[in-house]
Amino acid sequence: MELKRIIEEKSQESWEIYLPSISIDCVVFGFHDGELKVLVLRMKGKNLLGLPGGYVEKRENLNEAAIRILKSRTGAENIYLNQFSTFGDLDRSEGFFEEYADTLWNKQRFISVGFYALVDYSKVNLVIDTVFDPCEWVAIEDLTAFMMDHNIIFNKALETLRLQLNHKPIGHSLLPEKFTMPELQKLYEIILGKKLNRGNFYRKMLRYDILEKLDESRKGGAHKAPDLYKFDVEKYQLALKNGLNEGW
Amino acid sequence: MELKRIIEEKSQESWEIYLPSISIDCVVFGFHDGELKVLVLRMKGKNLLGLPGGYVEKRENLNEAAIRILKSRTGAENIYLNQFSTFGDLDRSEGFFEEYADTLWNKQRFISVGFYALVDYSKVNLVIDTVFDPCEWVAIEDLTAFMMDHNIIFNKALETLRLQLNHKPIGHSLLPEKFTMPELQKLYEIILGKKLNRGNFYRKMLRYDILEKLDESRKGGAHKAPDLYKFDVEKYQLALKNGLNEGW
Repeated sequence: MELKRIIEEKSQESWEIYLPSISIDCVVFGFHDGELKVLVLRMKGKNLLGLPGGYVEKRENLNEAAIRILKSRTGAENIYLNQFSTFGDLDRSEGFFEEYADTLWNKQRFISVGFYALVDYSKVNLVIDTVFDPCEWVAIEDLTAFMMDHNIIFNKALETLRLQLNHKPIGHSLLPEKFTMPELQKLYEIILGKKLNRGNFYRKMLRYDILEKLDESRKGGAHKAPDLYKFDVEKYQLALKNGLNEGW
Repeated sequence: MELKRIIEEKSQESWEIYLPSISIDCVVFGFHDGELKVLVLRMKGKNLLGLPGGYVEKRENLNEAAIRILKSRTGAENIYLNQFSTFGDLDRSEGFFEEYADTLWNKQRFISVGFYALVDYSKVNLVIDTVFDPCEWVAIEDLTAFMMDHNIIFNKALETLRLQLNHKPIGHSLLPEKFTMPELQKLYEIILGKKLNRGNFYRKMLRYDILEKLDESRKGGAHKAPDLYKFDVEKYQLALKNGLNEGW
């Protein structure tokens, strides 16, 4: 059995290279043109989805390991990953490598540090590696069953992303440079998974004071041309660092 | 040297009991009567503060380990700990156990999961253990140098607690059952480390819709008796779970 042999061979190497007991899982949300997707891999031989993940090298910082893992699994570079939670239940992977010897690296107990990111998926080049399963983008409403506790990790990442909307700005590098207020609202609605009141959204956004209203408006279309906005990058960066105006 | 012998003896035991590479550090904030403190221990023989911490047993959930550690170090029970970040830089404890053999448990590389809590410190009984350094409450403005990267862990916990004020309610079990709006404002000001505008605070709190105004007011004092409030526990619990009204 080819896959089994590969996993067993890699196991020996892993014992030498990596720090025991620690793993990493990445939840990469992709947004483009009104769609929210997540980067997953399909387990060969099992009808299950997995999050791209890996281990921390003995002489490597935790956060750098996350970037290396994401790159090696997906080819994606320059993705800023946010740590969100660490998963350490005893039974989180129980029964998953049952057909292997107890000394198999993958069969050990791992406490997994979760990282997430939100990127424009049209700008990410997925380079497919020959050893690993290929990664792919799946719309979050089309997700099927995850392996191990990866559904818990995914849900916690989504919850964190949603909470983050309360104190951090979002949209830069996800929306085109110039956008309308309804386009920005759509981004929030897709992440939150619910409709928002148009007037409240508008007022709240203006209070955040991170937008610049442009003198131009969108051309074409039958209706009154909608106003265009862009982010005030300096204020946006400051809000990223210090939290939004609305906060305490 | 007594301390060295104790550490070396415990090292052997630790290799057997605990999961390698993983440690836990707890940042317990204590509030009472207008004062914010943090629970620290003083390293014997070094003029440094440390956060109460420990390791995860091989057959123990991560979150349960945090509760056990806090109890064993402080005697404090029933403290709900929130995980906030995991610290995994290579040099986070470098040079700290230099005088020991490389096989010492404590000298290994550990990735540390941070937990924090905010409690009424007058309700916590610190039971002093004979083996460990005693824990004590220190006002956050009186903190002196921390060991290893514990100042980074402490600061990140404080930052998380402050951000949390934007989407979660706070105050229940920290304030007396009936309190005035200025008393609640004082709690926020102490955690945030800054003064807040009285009118804005009042309006924002009412929008949160977690308070119940009582028919009575505080007696005594020369001025107009201030209105008394209490938390609507049902709404408070719901906001803890789903986020505050103000949020998206």
